[in-house]
Amino acid sequence: MTPYNIDHVAIAVDDLDEAIERHRQLFGAEPLWREVVADQGVEEAMIPIGGSFVQLLAPLSGDTPVGRFLTKYGEGLHHIAYAVPDIAAALQDLRGEGARLIDETARTGGRGAKIAFVHPAAFAGTLIELVELPDE
Amino acid sequence: MTPYNIDHVAIAVDDLDEAIERHRQLFGAEPLWREVVADQGVEEAMIPIGGSFVQLLAPLSGDTPVGRFLTKYGEGLHHIAYAVPDIAAALQDLRGEGARLIDETARTGGRGAKIAFVHPAAFAGTLIELVELPDE
Repeated sequence: MTPYNIDHVAIAVDDLDEAIERHRQLFGAEPLWREVVADQGVEEAMIPIGGSFVQLLAPLSGDTPVGRFLTKYGEGLHHIAYAVPDIAAALQDLRGEGARLIDETARTGGRGAKIAFVHPAAFAGTLIELVELPDE
Repeated sequence: MTPYNIDHVAIAVDDLDEAIERHRQLFGAEPLWREVVADQGVEEAMIPIGGSFVQLLAPLSGDTPVGRFLTKYGEGLHHIAYAVPDIAAALQDLRGEGARLIDETARTGGRGAKIAFVHPAAFAGTLIELVELPDE
């Protein structure tokens, strides 16, 4: 299933307020909203750039996936999210190609979207999220 | 200067042909073109996704920035590129904010675009490229 958009590019940061302010200073762009996604242990700020978002991602505690990423690697690019029209069909296609998945079925992410993560072992060491946005 | 688009998200890969084929298998999308950018020591393949590109980036030799990145970190997300209308003005703004730059002035990248890299120390450990596309 071909993604129809890069929904967002996520950057892991230590301090969400500082990162938002620094991004604003350097690049002028501001978040449209911020949101705690308790299920993922993060607070995220969504900065619109063209038809995509830069997502700044701060952990709610050290003992979360993003908290452990920051301890290991420091701040930096974390994942890329592809928007797909039908996430269940996309996951089925990926399983058919033998791709390793983190999430076998979709769960609920920010914006009430259906999301699932594909393991970095599936493609070029890159954590890829699939996003199916809710109907407007 | 506010970017008007995420021009591309770059992923460093060991083998460009393999990565293109794997991306096609998993996600259906194919490169619109590929290009050697000798100045940067890379061959890049540009896969359109929505209004942006995923750029697969393979080093021409180990002794290049992307070659050294791969040796140190392995395959993975490498940089994000913001499209700006006027790269000279954007660089001047960034200097005014005290941002550390890799390129003090623009040079020529793929597609004949004017490009410049901002140092990861400037924002969240993230390598950010500025791109001013040539007039059509």
